[in-house]
Amino acid sequence: MLRNDQLAEWDRETFFHPSTHLAQFARGELPDRIVKTGDGVYITDREGNRLLDAFAGLYCVNVGYGRSEIADAIAKQARELAYYHAYVGHGTEASITLAKMVVDRAPVGMSKVYFGLSGSDANETNVKLVWYYNNVLGRPEKKKIISRWRGYHGSGLMTGSLTGLELFHNQFDLPLSQVIHTDAPYYFHRNVRSQSEADFVAQCAASLEELIEKEGADTIAAFFGEPVLGTGGIVPPPEGYWDAIQTVLRKHDILLIADEVVTGFGRLGCMFGSDHYGIRPDIITIAKGLTSAYAPLSGSIVSEKVWKVLEDGTDKLGPIGHGWTYSAHPIGAAAGVANLKLIDDLDLVTNARETGAYFKQALKDALDDIEIVGDIRGEGLMAAVEFVQDRETGARFEASRKVGPAIATALLDRSKVIGRAMPQGDILGFAPPLCLTTEEADTIVEATRDAVKTVAAGL
Amino acid sequence: MLRNDQLAEWDRETFFHPSTHLAQFARGELPDRIVKTGDGVYITDREGNRLLDAFAGLYCVNVGYGRSEIADAIAKQARELAYYHAYVGHGTEASITLAKMVVDRAPVGMSKVYFGLSGSDANETNVKLVWYYNNVLGRPEKKKIISRWRGYHGSGLMTGSLTGLELFHNQFDLPLSQVIHTDAPYYFHRNVRSQSEADFVAQCAASLEELIEKEGADTIAAFFGEPVLGTGGIVPPPEGYWDAIQTVLRKHDILLIADEVVTGFGRLGCMFGSDHYGIRPDIITIAKGLTSAYAPLSGSIVSEKVWKVLEDGTDKLGPIGHGWTYSAHPIGAAAGVANLKLIDDLDLVTNARETGAYFKQALKDALDDIEIVGDIRGEGLMAAVEFVQDRETGARFEASRKVGPAIATALLDRSKVIGRAMPQGDILGFAPPLCLTTEEADTIVEATRDAVKTVAAGL
Repeated sequence: MLRNDQLAEWDRETFFHPSTHLAQFARGELPDRIVKTGDGVYITDREGNRLLDAFAGLYCVNVGYGRSEIADAIAKQARELAYYHAYVGHGTEASITLAKMVVDRAPVGMSKVYFGLSGSDANETNVKLVWYYNNVLGRPEKKKIISRWRGYHGSGLMTGSLTGLELFHNQFDLPLSQVIHTDAPYYFHRNVRSQSEADFVAQCAASLEELIEKEGADTIAAFFGEPVLGTGGIVPPPEGYWDAIQTVLRKHDILLIADEVVTGFGRLGCMFGSDHYGIRPDIITIAKGLTSAYAPLSGSIVSEKVWKVLEDGTDKLGPIGHGWTYSAHPIGAAAGVANLKLIDDLDLVTNARETGAYFKQALKDALDDIEIVGDIRGEGLMAAVEFVQDRETGARFEASRKVGPAIATALLDRSKVIGRAMPQGDILGFAPPLCLTTEEADTIVEATRDAVKTVAAGL
Repeated sequence: MLRNDQLAEWDRETFFHPSTHLAQFARGELPDRIVKTGDGVYITDREGNRLLDAFAGLYCVNVGYGRSEIADAIAKQARELAYYHAYVGHGTEASITLAKMVVDRAPVGMSKVYFGLSGSDANETNVKLVWYYNNVLGRPEKKKIISRWRGYHGSGLMTGSLTGLELFHNQFDLPLSQVIHTDAPYYFHRNVRSQSEADFVAQCAASLEELIEKEGADTIAAFFGEPVLGTGGIVPPPEGYWDAIQTVLRKHDILLIADEVVTGFGRLGCMFGSDHYGIRPDIITIAKGLTSAYAPLSGSIVSEKVWKVLEDGTDKLGPIGHGWTYSAHPIGAAAGVANLKLIDDLDLVTNARETGAYFKQALKDALDDIEIVGDIRGEGLMAAVEFVQDRETGARFEASRKVGPAIATALLDRSKVIGRAMPQGDILGFAPPLCLTTEEADTIVEATRDAVKTVAAGL
């Protein structure tokens, strides 16, 4: 067995970590953490620290850690057939079964699943499909994509462009010119404090329509949106938002891509966020919850409406020129089948709804009296606490004070609980495994109150 | 257990296969194949067909099918810790060990590995890194990317643009404007038949330099190339090609990205194609052979020269805004560690060199007398046979006659051997597992002679 200090040395010398301060890490100024095992909502590192992971990895380990049902399915598939490709009509029992299971669970009107590896690559696929769709329909000018400020759709070149967060644009020459952004449905940060939620929604819809008319509806192909904003701050939409947006999109014949990478398969207490909010998407992006991250797998669920055009396209043009070597990888597919079964067997969607409601209420009860707490929000088992300088105006702290990161650090250091400091704002995010118990919820809430009060006292 | 007809029905109804004629497949006009197990160079489908896979999936199952060493490593990792993320300095024993193993095997001057999932996403990462690199260096205009006609670098929006094949551009509005293409080093299809290999190489280099000067060297960031052209036809470069190209790139301060997705980890009979051809890359793309496809994993190996600039970047700008949820996924990392050990233990790199040489010679001996065989080429365990209307001029058959696909079909139907009809030209490609024996090579060669003669007789 390798020694911890040996691994730590190799880590600094050879491993390029994502979303990391590369220089500080290489110089040993940032801590490393080598994770060893996990069980339920807990992970344990090689130093013996046992941490309550209230963010489920990166909101992806939905069934919790250490599920032998999925590990066994992966082991069985690895022994039987670790890999074969899915090109030109090839498949495996696992990949076909999973396609069927996904479509059975998807909102009405969905037809087929293309499997990829990550949410980023699935959204890349979606942009390609949308462009192909409009070429087949003879509308070569209808190609621009609208997404929202604070949306998160990946960190590739196109998908990072769809993402509406500066961190993913700066120094990478993004967004690409094919992508334009519209308002985030972030009622808490409305410009006019006295504005009603209904007026704010009307303003979001009007602003979208104005953008479409300015650009020309015949140049706009699709609108990408997460049912609940994720990395942009964990922000559920205001009442009526999705109805208002969909009315505008339908009027201008613009496809709607629901990015359900975070919300798909139960996180909001509903199998899909689209069902929860009455969204009727043309394509749905899935990843994380599809396998609970036990193996990499993503997907694009294509509606019958879009599929029919893709079929016409291949009748006119031959086989579609799109595919990854690892599309529908058998290990990922086997993990997905076992994972979706487990979600049903443990009734985790119901638990996300019920324990999610309990958790949000407990956060409100515990934190509402602390002055820097500006907003406590959530849906199902996604929740966020936002910290502000001024509760009345919603005015933020100076970013350089790093209040959000300081609270996440205090939470971890004082109570061994992992919450996530979301980028752009002082927002502590929670998205625990969907198997969370009310006792575990209480532990998170208590630890959070302690961390917030500790940091607030020092401000 | 599910019945075959039940699976077949679900397959047509719900599964969107990559690189497939979607309409024909959904209507049942294209055959499906549900693959069940694999052992060595063979796969077996659910109908009981045992096929010799002379393309190793999609040139990726380098160690061969059914390796229990890798299956066991995957199973162990799945039980211990199926997932944790690698953001902000997090890792696992497997991911750190693999980073160390990759850098140890990489060509001189390489420093760190960023892990992704697919070759496409790794090249996407590379473009982002190249742009970031030039922004940090204060050269914001130096951003265009040169790749080659017939290069293959993925099928995303940017990576499909890097790819120089029409199938991946048409109807997808590619290539994007940031990518420009230069000549393929395809000596067999030189315009002037009497041209020497040395003159052809000089022409490739001059043509590249002309393009750079036309665009302005200060607008060109990087050159992407596979050591041996892969999907573009399995074309080893003419003698001296890489020296000549590198001289031009160095002169104009243009980074060189060696796409070793196919050639990395032994396929050419050398650990890396870069070592084989004396290429000194700034970044190397890896995927397929890294895990032999037992689990999805790719990587960008970054040279010390590039890494130092990335470090400066994070010192100036903070954490790098790039990462996939599944970067350095533990299951992929565990598969990679076991796979690289197995490549060493079985000395598969040597076998690729020796059996590869035997295989190429055997193809030549068996096929050279057949009139439609225009070229037999290869390096290590990559080989191709190209079919032409006229051996002297190299004139191709009409694409609509589909001579290449017909031969691949005959090979499969008559002898149960899988070769791949490469796109754009009548080229039968081989890239068997690196454990291929000379007996198995003989089987492929014999079957190929039979298929070629059969199809040739009907022309």
